[in-house]
Amino acid sequence: MTGSSRSRHGGNVVALCGGIGGAKLALGLSKVIADERLVVAVNTGDDFEHLGLHISPDVDTVTYTLAGIANPETGWGRADETWNFMESLGRIGGETWFQLGDRDLALHVERTRRLRAGDSLSEITADMRARLGISARILPMSDDPVRTHVETDAGPMPFQNYFVERKCEPELRSIRFVSAQSARVQPDVARALGNSDLRCVIICPSNPYLSVDPILAVGAMRELLRQTRAPVVAVSPLVDGQTVKGPMSKIMREQDLEARHATIARHYDDVIDGLMIDSSDDQIPNHISTTVEDTMMHSLDDKVRLARHVLAFADEISAGRELPQARRA
Amino acid sequence: MTGSSRSRHGGNVVALCGGIGGAKLALGLSKVIADERLVVAVNTGDDFEHLGLHISPDVDTVTYTLAGIANPETGWGRADETWNFMESLGRIGGETWFQLGDRDLALHVERTRRLRAGDSLSEITADMRARLGISARILPMSDDPVRTHVETDAGPMPFQNYFVERKCEPELRSIRFVSAQSARVQPDVARALGNSDLRCVIICPSNPYLSVDPILAVGAMRELLRQTRAPVVAVSPLVDGQTVKGPMSKIMREQDLEARHATIARHYDDVIDGLMIDSSDDQIPNHISTTVEDTMMHSLDDKVRLARHVLAFADEISAGRELPQARRA
Repeated sequence: MTGSSRSRHGGNVVALCGGIGGAKLALGLSKVIADERLVVAVNTGDDFEHLGLHISPDVDTVTYTLAGIANPETGWGRADETWNFMESLGRIGGETWFQLGDRDLALHVERTRRLRAGDSLSEITADMRARLGISARILPMSDDPVRTHVETDAGPMPFQNYFVERKCEPELRSIRFVSAQSARVQPDVARALGNSDLRCVIICPSNPYLSVDPILAVGAMRELLRQTRAPVVAVSPLVDGQTVKGPMSKIMREQDLEARHATIARHYDDVIDGLMIDSSDDQIPNHISTTVEDTMMHSLDDKVRLARHVLAFADEISAGRELPQARRA
Repeated sequence: MTGSSRSRHGGNVVALCGGIGGAKLALGLSKVIADERLVVAVNTGDDFEHLGLHISPDVDTVTYTLAGIANPETGWGRADETWNFMESLGRIGGETWFQLGDRDLALHVERTRRLRAGDSLSEITADMRARLGISARILPMSDDPVRTHVETDAGPMPFQNYFVERKCEPELRSIRFVSAQSARVQPDVARALGNSDLRCVIICPSNPYLSVDPILAVGAMRELLRQTRAPVVAVSPLVDGQTVKGPMSKIMREQDLEARHATIARHYDDVIDGLMIDSSDDQIPNHISTTVEDTMMHSLDDKVRLARHVLAFADEISAGRELPQARRA
């Protein structure tokens, strides 16, 4: 192992991450990467104002997961949750389609208060993760508001109305990330990506279209990923041609896309150097470095194992190979 | 009984009301006065913004009490309450000195949302009481913000910081009702007070200095009470020279006031026609109509009995007597 790769092993790892699937790998990574060297850049395209509160669903899922207080059944929200607020809200005529647990609510109320007082989402998220004993740096992809909107056969709608209120039932036609271009990549994320000791970038097994694309759409993000000398690897969210959770397979069908790892590889073509795929798929993309693993993450051991493997895969690319042609374009 | 007094018995009753003690009598009145003929005008001087939420403690106490869902132990907040929000808020560094239960929180979140959307506190309160099956008209004393501030030996402070955060420990020097003069009496309250079929006005046994004075300080309120031909009667909050709950005795000492019914009578001198006092006090004010009752309200029966008695007392004044001299000034 060369000196240069040793120093890179001590460097930062940046994980791009959506909600549930991404949070699982981020948890695995947080057990393997010490201190603050793990930077988790989280999708905020799903953020919205609801009941007068600022909700950041993916930031919350990652925060709760890394704090060990996430609801293991749902993947979102908190463990040991109670629902008296929602029940009481329904009784006085409030909107109840978006479930907010009593414990969960504290985060939304406190964050909303601080945002109104002028603190940034980054500062608030940093304070909360510190309070909850998380050493990994959880950061929003941007402190500027970016909002995912979908065009469907039932008309255009904001993401949460499509995803939660309508349960992804309308047929998806297109996805827009409102204000993404003019948004600035969160400065610490940009710094980590631009730093020469960056070890690797990992695109977590989140929904590429709804969870990762908004991150890639932010300001200079795509350019930062293209320019870094560190390897960028993605973990395909497909297992056996399906997604573990969520509407990705349905969305791929609606977009006439085959639910294959090759489709994911092509989707990330201009930014990744390697793709980690589940062993269940027989069609291995042939134009990119791939590695085959069991990517299902049931237990904490699974998550840690996958984290180690994806880091090893990235380190291998970093140590042994030229960057693929696509990255040089 | 004359025709005029029969019509008056069918008229509206306006109750001026603070928190716990006032809410108890308001509950009794709501069991005795049918439909919407009971107008409960509630102190909002205690209202404040906390955690980014608009809290109206007295309106809430009256609403919960009349809906039969108040916490019988504390007098404020809701029965069968849980505290997971507060616990979780403390863990992420939020302020926890003002207790907000999980069920209670729904009211604050929904009200705050609607206030920001431009609805008035009156409209919101009306919708909530309808949802909670309350027929009495609970109304804020004003839709304009009035804020009670206290001057103490520890400096000036907003009411809730004195009352809840500091537990009334600082010595009270003076009380101000910020913006009270320029505030408008809530229009339905003003209409009920100005209407010729008003049966009576009842000043509930709330703290005269902290809970009733802010109501009397609003815009034309004192003038409306002086001008009405209906009797205005107060129920003294003192029992045995003490208050049942709250800091009134301490405040009276700090103001060099004797904790006697005569002091209460003098305090309300320019607006009341009669004072109902507890039987435990041996010093009966001699310059005003008084009636002696057991004013302790433990059970619902106590509250209904006291409500009947105070209405009978007012009707007696109305039927049999000239209005006292003070009211003609």
